[in-house]
Amino acid sequence: MREVTIGLLGCGTVGQGFVNLLKQDRFRPLSIGRILVRDLCKERPGIDRALLTTNAIEVIDNCDLVVELIGGVHSAGAYLRRALRSGRDVVTANKALLADSGRELFAIARTSGARVGFEASVCGGIPVIRAIEHGLAGDSIESIIGIVNGTCNYILTRMEENGADFDAALRLAQERGFAEADATLDVSGADALQKMRILAELAFGAAHARVRVHGIDDIDREEIEQARSRRCVIRHVASARRLPGGVELRVERRELPESHPFAAVRDENNAVIIRGRAVGELTFVGKGAGSLPTAAAVLSDVIELAGRRRAAVLRANLT
Amino acid sequence: MREVTIGLLGCGTVGQGFVNLLKQDRFRPLSIGRILVRDLCKERPGIDRALLTTNAIEVIDNCDLVVELIGGVHSAGAYLRRALRSGRDVVTANKALLADSGRELFAIARTSGARVGFEASVCGGIPVIRAIEHGLAGDSIESIIGIVNGTCNYILTRMEENGADFDAALRLAQERGFAEADATLDVSGADALQKMRILAELAFGAAHARVRVHGIDDIDREEIEQARSRRCVIRHVASARRLPGGVELRVERRELPESHPFAAVRDENNAVIIRGRAVGELTFVGKGAGSLPTAAAVLSDVIELAGRRRAAVLRANLT
Repeated sequence: MREVTIGLLGCGTVGQGFVNLLKQDRFRPLSIGRILVRDLCKERPGIDRALLTTNAIEVIDNCDLVVELIGGVHSAGAYLRRALRSGRDVVTANKALLADSGRELFAIARTSGARVGFEASVCGGIPVIRAIEHGLAGDSIESIIGIVNGTCNYILTRMEENGADFDAALRLAQERGFAEADATLDVSGADALQKMRILAELAFGAAHARVRVHGIDDIDREEIEQARSRRCVIRHVASARRLPGGVELRVERRELPESHPFAAVRDENNAVIIRGRAVGELTFVGKGAGSLPTAAAVLSDVIELAGRRRAAVLRANLT
Repeated sequence: MREVTIGLLGCGTVGQGFVNLLKQDRFRPLSIGRILVRDLCKERPGIDRALLTTNAIEVIDNCDLVVELIGGVHSAGAYLRRALRSGRDVVTANKALLADSGRELFAIARTSGARVGFEASVCGGIPVIRAIEHGLAGDSIESIIGIVNGTCNYILTRMEENGADFDAALRLAQERGFAEADATLDVSGADALQKMRILAELAFGAAHARVRVHGIDDIDREEIEQARSRRCVIRHVASARRLPGGVELRVERRELPESHPFAAVRDENNAVIIRGRAVGELTFVGKGAGSLPTAAAVLSDVIELAGRRRAAVLRANLT
């Protein structure tokens, strides 16, 4: 691994987790240059205040690689465009940005020879992006189904196990830090759709998509109890499959038998089943969100890109 | 992907699956140079006879990348040493060879700048090598447990579901092509130990290992029925974990509650649970063997190495 200076955009819980993971001795070649924050005075345990700045340009233009953890579409998009145009690799956990302008960002990266790492954008710590991009590169993917929103799964399994109603289970998710104060993006299915769109574009390429989305906000206890009486459970399932002339994306509640692998996926966990023509069904289960799993996924991308930069530098010297 | 000529060593069921997968249009930059076989006259559907040869040197010295699918330790080792010394990348599914002389082969590769792809050597189509090498590169792995031998799992689940005794279940596995005529390597636990040793070296680095291996060949129906009466199942579990001063490798039968994720892993399927300090538990389930899943894993490695060769060629031109 060569010496790489990282420009960090955002220093919330994932950003702080990332900085703390980086402190391990074996990552010494990787150092943090500057860190973009909105509020210089906020308490951030373990973070060197001297690195903080409110000037994004200063962070981007004085690093080898940009890690974007601010979220949102507009500022984050502008920052990553600037970084990629200048040939800097970027790592992002920002699924909303990728769903909104992923194609444009990848096109800029292709032109400048930069790379985009985005393992952390879908299913946090589960390396499902890598599995689709590399692990299954020799296979034809037929379909993907997944529990990709930990908030919804937490709510559904709390209703199932505690007999809570939707509002009580949502409050519990908020208290435990698994849901934002405004959980609309999660419970409406919009977040799951963004994630499945990213997986589908990777697996099937850019294609016209037929979309159907149904959230969990209109669920009641009766629905869960009726499923239970049939030895079934309710899970919020996102899916993508090839259709003639395009791709179908769906996010919806499904009643699944207790023997289905998704029935055992509880609380904030995520799961993805990829069906490949040669390989059959591959199942991945793990923590889909949370500060440390996401930070570890970001760091894995940084390590991979840092390893590859040596070749890129040689390439640049040749042209 | 640049044009890459593949030298194929071995053309059994996995080799034939590999050649057939390669025929897809999108893999046109990858072509088979020569194919090493023992018997030129054997029927091999879909294989161009003009490519066959019994001369290994001819195959190795006239290709960009070697795919080794002959198995065994001695000839396969000699061929891969020759390929790696000449700077050719190699892809292998040969776990016995890696367990026996992996360190030596990787050392040769480091010296010559060649790469070794070995995703197919452990758990066939499940991209667990990639997950440990790259997906979890930012995390510290604490332990790995797995059902990594499909033959043993097939036998145990047949005994559990059909009430068969060991010998009948083994015969069934042989009839279905999940076990060799001599299944000693599988049922003794030796095959599972080889696989877990590879995963442990990747996850923990080379370290002194304390090893304990127990097969499934002395199991009787009573053991399975007693577990069942306690709402448990018997699975053949391989595991690796850090100990002070080394690594502990174990292969043994374990009685697991019906709610354990491994209880749902049936027939010839494999499963691996990796515990990372940051990421928590990650579970992978899929087909661990079989011609097509293994061939697809080999092809994924070839695609990744072929993509990276351009940089390697530039590097060679600079020195």
